[in-house]
Amino acid sequence: MDEIQMDLLEKVAGLHELPTGAYNIRANGEKAGRNVTDNIDIVSKEDKPGIDIIIKPGTKNENVHIPVVVSESGLQDMVYNDFLIGEGADVTIIAGCGIHNGGDEESRHDGIHTFYVGKGAKVKYVEKHYGEGDGSGARVMNPTTIVKMEEDSHMEMETTQIKGVDSTDRITEAVLKEGATLVINEKLMTHGKQYAKTSFQVDLDGDGSSTNVVSRSVAKDDSSQLFLAKINGNARCSGHSECDAIIMGNARISAIPEITANNLDASLIHEAAIGKIAGDQIIKLMTLGLTEEEAEAQIISGFLK
Amino acid sequence: MDEIQMDLLEKVAGLHELPTGAYNIRANGEKAGRNVTDNIDIVSKEDKPGIDIIIKPGTKNENVHIPVVVSESGLQDMVYNDFLIGEGADVTIIAGCGIHNGGDEESRHDGIHTFYVGKGAKVKYVEKHYGEGDGSGARVMNPTTIVKMEEDSHMEMETTQIKGVDSTDRITEAVLKEGATLVINEKLMTHGKQYAKTSFQVDLDGDGSSTNVVSRSVAKDDSSQLFLAKINGNARCSGHSECDAIIMGNARISAIPEITANNLDASLIHEAAIGKIAGDQIIKLMTLGLTEEEAEAQIISGFLK
Repeated sequence: MDEIQMDLLEKVAGLHELPTGAYNIRANGEKAGRNVTDNIDIVSKEDKPGIDIIIKPGTKNENVHIPVVVSESGLQDMVYNDFLIGEGADVTIIAGCGIHNGGDEESRHDGIHTFYVGKGAKVKYVEKHYGEGDGSGARVMNPTTIVKMEEDSHMEMETTQIKGVDSTDRITEAVLKEGATLVINEKLMTHGKQYAKTSFQVDLDGDGSSTNVVSRSVAKDDSSQLFLAKINGNARCSGHSECDAIIMGNARISAIPEITANNLDASLIHEAAIGKIAGDQIIKLMTLGLTEEEAEAQIISGFLK
Repeated sequence: MDEIQMDLLEKVAGLHELPTGAYNIRANGEKAGRNVTDNIDIVSKEDKPGIDIIIKPGTKNENVHIPVVVSESGLQDMVYNDFLIGEGADVTIIAGCGIHNGGDEESRHDGIHTFYVGKGAKVKYVEKHYGEGDGSGARVMNPTTIVKMEEDSHMEMETTQIKGVDSTDRITEAVLKEGATLVINEKLMTHGKQYAKTSFQVDLDGDGSSTNVVSRSVAKDDSSQLFLAKINGNARCSGHSECDAIIMGNARISAIPEITANNLDASLIHEAAIGKIAGDQIIKLMTLGLTEEEAEAQIISGFLK
């Protein structure tokens, strides 16, 4: 791995060196490193690009890092990763993708991640997307995340698009059985002429299942964002979705949530708000000595924290 | 007008006798009565069924009643009514439609109402829909309401579907200029195998324009409801929409609101909640001596008030 790739790795996975525990590093479409542990196996797929991450039942307190970096301009990378998380496991999975595009061609990474979360298992999934490079070629990432949750399993997703991603079409689909819980926290920032679409569908199929989908986003300059969230209550369940968005400059933001109760005992709530930063918030910070730009930056960073 | 028609008239317009002021009563597709005043003229359209209601600028504190009753089974009635509301007028318009269907064929009334609300005018629009009759024929009403609001005009819509409407597809579209305000309060109840779809689109085109769209609905038995609300903020404006729904029995309810900010100074909020009546509310009323059914009826009536 070269210096640009190491730098991307730090941005998307917080890695300054090789991580401890299980990991698989993909650089420019090739395997750049892998480690497995007694409890976590990683196997390359034979029929298509991608890996199977197999976590033994009962595995506790282990991490899996699976970062992807793309530094070759014009590379079109596509992977299928399956996560088989055994019953009662408790693990953290850190994914992330960084693209450095110094050329004129579009660089693109698309990933289809499918999680099979076993009975009573607990997963924390962290994903960061980041783009950079002064070439005119676009940096594109289209992640699809499919989540299948067994009884009493728990999953928490933290997904962040830091900056520099020119176009993204994010799809997240989940099906929850009895007692399963899914918590999603998404943070998105777009600037320049970027476009981001994010679309959630959660099917609450089991009694006692619940979900909380929270999206916070900032659209600057001429960028545009579309937020779609669909929660289907098909059992005794509770669902909440929330979209808070800050609009700046000439940006455009649409929020289209959808809640459907197909069961008497489904309790579903949605909230959405779009607005600019309140003027008095900026003035307050400016009286403390910040410039207007610094004040805005501080407010946005607090909002997306 | 016969007894059934008079009874429908009372249900949808609260009229026991002919109203004072301007009115136009339509019964089974024909004009059954009309009155005009110095300030309010009502003229039958020549090219299609329907009327023009012409309200002079500056008209104050006058009412217009335009109820429709259908008691002939199998009647398919369609009207186009235009409301030309002069600058600075302040009027109340009471519409409503009652269908009594004692036969086996579908009875249907569709109305396309277009409001041209002049500069600074103030309109209150009240509309009630009601169906009855023990025939197996369906009672269908599809109202379309188009609202064009000039500078600083104000409109308040109160629409209620009381009961007995088997199928409805309600469309409301509004465009607001500078300083215009639109307040919508919708109340819907469906039962049996009824279906109700209600769809709002409000374009906030003018600086200082605002809207508040509030829908409260109850779906009982095997009925289903679909709520769509779209608010586009195209200027310095504020928009709020809210859908509160109570689900009972095997009913289904979907809420799909949409807010889009196309302008930095658009401030948009949406809220939606679907759930059943809280058990402790029912128990509280039952301890006061009500049966479970009476308790439910009381809670629903309070919710839809």
